[in-house]
Amino acid sequence: MQTAPTRSFTSKGERTRSKIVDTAASLMLLDGVAGTTIEGVCETAGVGKSQIYHYFDDKNELVRAVIELQAELVLNGQEPHLTNIRGWESWDAWRDFVVDIQRKSGCAGGCPLGSLASELTDGDDLTRMVLVRSFQRWERAFLEGVQQMKDLGLVRQDTDAALLATTLLAALQGGLLLCQTCKDVSPLETSLAGAIAYLRTFAESE
Amino acid sequence: MQTAPTRSFTSKGERTRSKIVDTAASLMLLDGVAGTTIEGVCETAGVGKSQIYHYFDDKNELVRAVIELQAELVLNGQEPHLTNIRGWESWDAWRDFVVDIQRKSGCAGGCPLGSLASELTDGDDLTRMVLVRSFQRWERAFLEGVQQMKDLGLVRQDTDAALLATTLLAALQGGLLLCQTCKDVSPLETSLAGAIAYLRTFAESE
Repeated sequence: MQTAPTRSFTSKGERTRSKIVDTAASLMLLDGVAGTTIEGVCETAGVGKSQIYHYFDDKNELVRAVIELQAELVLNGQEPHLTNIRGWESWDAWRDFVVDIQRKSGCAGGCPLGSLASELTDGDDLTRMVLVRSFQRWERAFLEGVQQMKDLGLVRQDTDAALLATTLLAALQGGLLLCQTCKDVSPLETSLAGAIAYLRTFAESE
Repeated sequence: MQTAPTRSFTSKGERTRSKIVDTAASLMLLDGVAGTTIEGVCETAGVGKSQIYHYFDDKNELVRAVIELQAELVLNGQEPHLTNIRGWESWDAWRDFVVDIQRKSGCAGGCPLGSLASELTDGDDLTRMVLVRSFQRWERAFLEGVQQMKDLGLVRQDTDAALLATTLLAALQGGLLLCQTCKDVSPLETSLAGAIAYLRTFAESE
């Protein structure tokens, strides 16, 4: 579910707002945030400038809506994998899921959230906090996954789940960046395989 | 050493070219590549537009020179750590070196090379290849470091150095992104600690 806008609109209004955010998200993924103008969004979405300012105070507010949309899209895909861990095969299934998305897209765009973070985090603090919260939610999903491995008795009870959650998220973000740069899924596969192999070193001995 | 420009210039010319690249690098780190214009570089560097076009065919060529400069700066710092491994303490020293740079900069900017990669890799292929080569050089430094651990008899001879090199580079890139986003070195420290701990699981038993 996308974070509800702070103001409420009619259902037609909601559709227009969504169209604006979707369009801005596509343009920002392609041209970066700095390379995307309100005028460009108007033109591509086929809406007037006054309409955009009816829904968003300024470009920063639109950018935050784009981050929330991308976080939803990324996490809606991955959370079900990470929070329903049934064993080691679940981690491999998550890895395959992530790698497959990149393979199908021709390794274009990297992580939409990572790209936005890379460009935006030295900008305004309100926007940065939306990014921080999105990464925290992602990290919690990993934490839950590692905790489930403990509950299943598959990793040792003294396993540092917080350390592993950060390690897994960083491996994913770094792997996606290398995958995007090299236009090759191999570095992503390797990075995720390495992070999962590290988790395996905490396996409860049988 | 910065990659030599393809054309040769007088020493005064070299200084002007360097000033242009340094200025462009600073602006691109701050405002992104898309947010940096040739006009902006002219203004900040105090040079005329015709001077820039004397040294660079177009903005893309200037961007490639900026990537090469940032790769030099990043790798000149890290390579000596990674290619002179004397034992486990060398890995910790490298981690401290990387974390310290971020702490001193207030976690601003992330990895200059990672940020450029995130923004540019869906653009022109020539520019992407300069990024790929820079990451490959970095990965080779990690590879050499792991190989030295083998030579020292500190990790097992069957250790997959290539897998570990990619894992370490991805952990670093992902950690830097999270550090930049959270304005906190902790995720970077954790990510690097995790990657080094993974390397330690290959330690030769005594």
